[in-house]
Amino acid sequence: MSIKAGVVGATGYAGAELVRLLLAHPQAEIAGISSVSFEGKALSEVYPSYQGLCDLVCENQSALAEKCDVVFACLPHGLSENLAKECHDLGKVFIDLGADFRLRAEEEYEEWYGAGFKDKALHGEAVYGLPELYRNEIKGKKLIANPGCYPTSAALGLWPALKQGLIQPQGLVIDSKSGVTGAGRGLSQTTHFPDCNEAFSPYKVAAHRHTPEIEQTLSDAAGTPVKLTFVPHLLPVNRGIVSTMYARLCPGVLEEQLRDAYQAAYGHEPFVRVLPKGETANLRNVKFTNLCDISLHMDERTGTLVVASTIDNMVKGAAGQAVQNMNLAFGLSETEGLQLVPPAF
Amino acid sequence: MSIKAGVVGATGYAGAELVRLLLAHPQAEIAGISSVSFEGKALSEVYPSYQGLCDLVCENQSALAEKCDVVFACLPHGLSENLAKECHDLGKVFIDLGADFRLRAEEEYEEWYGAGFKDKALHGEAVYGLPELYRNEIKGKKLIANPGCYPTSAALGLWPALKQGLIQPQGLVIDSKSGVTGAGRGLSQTTHFPDCNEAFSPYKVAAHRHTPEIEQTLSDAAGTPVKLTFVPHLLPVNRGIVSTMYARLCPGVLEEQLRDAYQAAYGHEPFVRVLPKGETANLRNVKFTNLCDISLHMDERTGTLVVASTIDNMVKGAAGQAVQNMNLAFGLSETEGLQLVPPAF
Amino acid sequence: MSIKAGVVGATGYAGAELVRLLLAHPQAEIAGISSVSFEGKALSEVYPSYQGLCDLVCENQSALAEKCDVVFACLPHGLSENLAKECHDLGKVFIDLGADFRLRAEEEYEEWYGAGFKDKALHGEAVYGLPELYRNEIKGKKLIANPGCYPTSAALGLWPALKQGLIQPQGLVIDSKSGVTGAGRGLSQTTHFPDCNEAFSPYKVAAHRHTPEIEQTLSDAAGTPVKLTFVPHLLPVNRGIVSTMYARLCPGVLEEQLRDAYQAAYGHEPFVRVLPKGETANLRNVKFTNLCDISLHMDERTGTLVVASTIDNMVKGAAGQAVQNMNLAFGLSETEGLQLVPPAF
Amino acid sequence: MSIKAGVVGATGYAGAELVRLLLAHPQAEIAGISSVSFEGKALSEVYPSYQGLCDLVCENQSALAEKCDVVFACLPHGLSENLAKECHDLGKVFIDLGADFRLRAEEEYEEWYGAGFKDKALHGEAVYGLPELYRNEIKGKKLIANPGCYPTSAALGLWPALKQGLIQPQGLVIDSKSGVTGAGRGLSQTTHFPDCNEAFSPYKVAAHRHTPEIEQTLSDAAGTPVKLTFVPHLLPVNRGIVSTMYARLCPGVLEEQLRDAYQAAYGHEPFVRVLPKGETANLRNVKFTNLCDISLHMDERTGTLVVASTIDNMVKGAAGQAVQNMNLAFGLSETEGLQLVPPAF
Repeated sequence: MSIKAGVVGATGYAGAELVRLLLAHPQAEIAGISSVSFEGKALSEVYPSYQGLCDLVCENQSALAEKCDVVFACLPHGLSENLAKECHDLGKVFIDLGADFRLRAEEEYEEWYGAGFKDKALHGEAVYGLPELYRNEIKGKKLIANPGCYPTSAALGLWPALKQGLIQPQGLVIDSKSGVTGAGRGLSQTTHFPDCNEAFSPYKVAAHRHTPEIEQTLSDAAGTPVKLTFVPHLLPVNRGIVSTMYARLCPGVLEEQLRDAYQAAYGHEPFVRVLPKGETANLRNVKFTNLCDISLHMDERTGTLVVASTIDNMVKGAAGQAVQNMNLAFGLSETEGLQLVPPAF
Repeated sequence: MSIKAGVVGATGYAGAELVRLLLAHPQAEIAGISSVSFEGKALSEVYPSYQGLCDLVCENQSALAEKCDVVFACLPHGLSENLAKECHDLGKVFIDLGADFRLRAEEEYEEWYGAGFKDKALHGEAVYGLPELYRNEIKGKKLIANPGCYPTSAALGLWPALKQGLIQPQGLVIDSKSGVTGAGRGLSQTTHFPDCNEAFSPYKVAAHRHTPEIEQTLSDAAGTPVKLTFVPHLLPVNRGIVSTMYARLCPGVLEEQLRDAYQAAYGHEPFVRVLPKGETANLRNVKFTNLCDISLHMDERTGTLVVASTIDNMVKGAAGQAVQNMNLAFGLSETEGLQLVPPAF
Repeated sequence: MSIKAGVVGATGYAGAELVRLLLAHPQAEIAGISSVSFEGKALSEVYPSYQGLCDLVCENQSALAEKCDVVFACLPHGLSENLAKECHDLGKVFIDLGADFRLRAEEEYEEWYGAGFKDKALHGEAVYGLPELYRNEIKGKKLIANPGCYPTSAALGLWPALKQGLIQPQGLVIDSKSGVTGAGRGLSQTTHFPDCNEAFSPYKVAAHRHTPEIEQTLSDAAGTPVKLTFVPHLLPVNRGIVSTMYARLCPGVLEEQLRDAYQAAYGHEPFVRVLPKGETANLRNVKFTNLCDISLHMDERTGTLVVASTIDNMVKGAAGQAVQNMNLAFGLSETEGLQLVPPAF
Repeated sequence: MSIKAGVVGATGYAGAELVRLLLAHPQAEIAGISSVSFEGKALSEVYPSYQGLCDLVCENQSALAEKCDVVFACLPHGLSENLAKECHDLGKVFIDLGADFRLRAEEEYEEWYGAGFKDKALHGEAVYGLPELYRNEIKGKKLIANPGCYPTSAALGLWPALKQGLIQPQGLVIDSKSGVTGAGRGLSQTTHFPDCNEAFSPYKVAAHRHTPEIEQTLSDAAGTPVKLTFVPHLLPVNRGIVSTMYARLCPGVLEEQLRDAYQAAYGHEPFVRVLPKGETANLRNVKFTNLCDISLHMDERTGTLVVASTIDNMVKGAAGQAVQNMNLAFGLSETEGLQLVPPAF
């Protein structure tokens, strides 16, 4: 089988990384790429690392859907809905790496993104594509909302403990640190090298748009509405997210129970590694792969569970997870094209 | 006045930074430096940046105290007590940059450092040298325990809110990130460039020795014993600590009250800047200075106060604060030798 | 076909990278790994990024050769000869990532490494494994000296111009900059993060052991003995080498001739990209791949050719080239297992 | 004495650094700052590190000259001439950190900057402000062209050898590497963190505008016109330049002669350190100071002299040298305000 894939917004960071992964996918081929800013230019002119390896030229997005089996949209929020509708009507699989279809509740979307759903029926057909947590719902779906990077790291890290009732669903704190690619290819003073290098700070404290997305998933886990405090930080590295998370343990919970819960949830997952006691999650160990490493730490002095969860924001947090969703949607092995060993250095 | 200062352990990072600050101090001169590992070598052989500017030779520590008015000890924990005693008996000021005299409760010291106090009377004369919080106690003291780097950033950040009863003293979370100089000059795999660069992870989760020191100070602020969760992370930068801290707000507390409390506490402090609303503490803005920047963030959705506090771990977190303590001990202006403008880049 | 490969010295950087590449090679499998320092330990204990993906345990090297078709030696210089002899006697392919067999002239080896050849006959069977330049000599050989990292970047960059007589063979200057993995996994003050980060300097100026290796290859190109000045620098990045090279143009040489010479030499090479006029070689564009990017620049004001050549020191400069040599030795396509697209960021 | 200084273009990197140095200068005070882009804003709004320490507001440049004794211009080339004229007519000292007055030959300026001199008489009054080489010419001058960063490192590094006839003036190669602040505060894809971090490449190969400036100074040294090859590289650090330079030794020159020449030239200079044999210049050792470190290396195999020269591009390469020139112009000690010890880490 060779799935024909189209990448809309291929010159952004998520799009470019997706192209890189699809080039190495044994059962997919890139049927076309598009970009508003670089139409008519080769991707390798924008990213010289691709020279001679992917010299595909950015087309206009309009013709793309027709010749593809699956369309990946790497667009700023608000721009995916129309394309999703078009793909839906053509019967194509649509995987949205943006935020348009991630939130189920329109009022949440309105509160955080300042606009409503244009086509409510279409939203009803979307599924949240975090395979480890929603695999059964994803299968057979054609409209997949690929999760945000922070939400992926956070949700995978806290889900088993919440699901098994081992931690309290209120008072959760998520302190995340992301590499600079998370801010995208667009220029800004914040991401200017001398401003960013040898620097570190939180940003959008308790005000980041990924907050309701994390809460949605963790509410599913807890079976009760969850409100939490989420604080992202900008880390002077290219790739990778570490989320350090704090939860109050339910009375009497033992470390063994916790480890069992995570083992049960992820023991068979190819992309989640629950680290042995004594190790801590380090973004170095997952870079350039679709892996999520999770380390568990009991603070018995204060009755607190500390979970550290790390992913590559561009892979498991974006392009890799999108490929995983494509694999699921087309009935392939989920690891197809994603069996990557993280470099040791 | 020219204070004669001696630096014991001058070739470690804290010692070397202290030498640098003392060289520029208008009312102090370096009477001698010592080092076990580099006895007989010039400091500039160990740190070539000092060549021609400080070619002092490391002596044996034994003769140092006698010719100095103040001795700074930059030693691994457990090695300061004897020297402190010697200085005490000679009537010299002793400023310990190590951990030996920081904890008032011997049982805490035993629990975290695995050894008791050798000379309890001597410990009774020590004062914890965080000037902004304990200025009156420090004045006139001759045995000063210079605070740890993490504790300085954490205590300054939470003190006013706790002191004024605006946050609850239980359930505090301190998520700190430190540059690599915090790990010292000694070699380790963790601080080997390719292991450390483009990497990030927590370490000693809820098990770092600075925990009881932070708790001691915050218990003073709260007027009740505080237990908290402290998680440090290794940040791939040379210098600087950011502590992001989470506390439950007491019912009904308004942002204005909070800002007033911090203003009252720090409005006249030369080294603490409470940032205007909308700004976030960034270690870039305090590097190479004795400053502490604090930003306050209310998460009204969850009733959480987020405080971000940043210092240069080598200056306000070590050598700079030691000089500040020296200034206090000798009745100088606290800012003498410390009026440094942080480079913009 | 499944080639059984053994990696001796697997816990060093070159060895670990080689394991990573071999794990993804469709026609090779790792029959065993060894390490003196970590015998009995899993590779994933040393490099946690490999956890669950390569948990091979380091054996004693003695049993390795017998069960392998090819043995890769990643050892300090001086330690490969005995193992090479053993493999030779067993009829195995031996690929040495160290320096023992790179120099053909024993007196050169003596001058730079301070020791002679133990088994001269064995040295006579060795071939220098830089496939783009010595492909025909490598085919069918069983004892392959994998080139050094600097020599690979330098030789590929200057070969065509020298071979075609477009530049003068005397007065060559090679100014190279290497990422820190080039210094290996062993700890040193130079590679301690705070010493190395935000720092830059040359080292072993005109005294690096790769000098005679570069000269040997370029003498082959020039058909006359070449002596040159080689100065390496330590670059605060993990991976990658850029060699900027300076040569006097022969009178009357036109840029077109130069570009033609490089095109003729490398136009069909899968791993060498001669960049279009106006672009400059950047290590970012070859990282994590076996590629070498070369940019050519004529300084007509001074009659100087400037060539910039970049590789990933761990891949084309070590493990990737070793796999390329294995492919050649076993008659596989040279790109097998090495068709890697460099990440754009 | 308190010199009243004005900084035009204070929000660029050179301007901001200059403000920082002037704030600590014991005999100068900042009378005003200006900025086209940020008129009406405080400098500390642009650079929050200055908050509370320098909250000067950017004025319009027009009123500045009148109230100052010295005006520093930190402007893009082509914008200084008018202001210089105004200061000249008012009898003020004018120190230009831009390129307008650096080249004595108008045809050189035309060739490299694409425009002629507007006021030739004014150019006749300018002096090139590299104090170690042109001290006597600078004294008493009121129009000082502050040298470029690369030219400062290069000229200091090669001057004594050329001046004493120890190296040949033709065939010089200057391979320089600069931190990213050298590219200024303006945003560009090249200086976007993910493009710049973990990357390295040459740029403007043999085509950088600092070339004729270096040639002008080295021609003065050699007493004959010098043409050379200059290749800059972008280094992923914030600050610092290392220039590695290659020259053919004149026949029979001994290392001792070389060292003597450098000792004679710089032995009494407060800002130049000729490193002992065996050490190599590292930008780490001069950062945040006005120092230039020079290391000398003889390659006897090829008759080549290698000189490595390093400065902080923002201090000795811009703002610090400008202060040094101000000190000279006003008859102060040259080291006033510049006695800075470089941090060891």
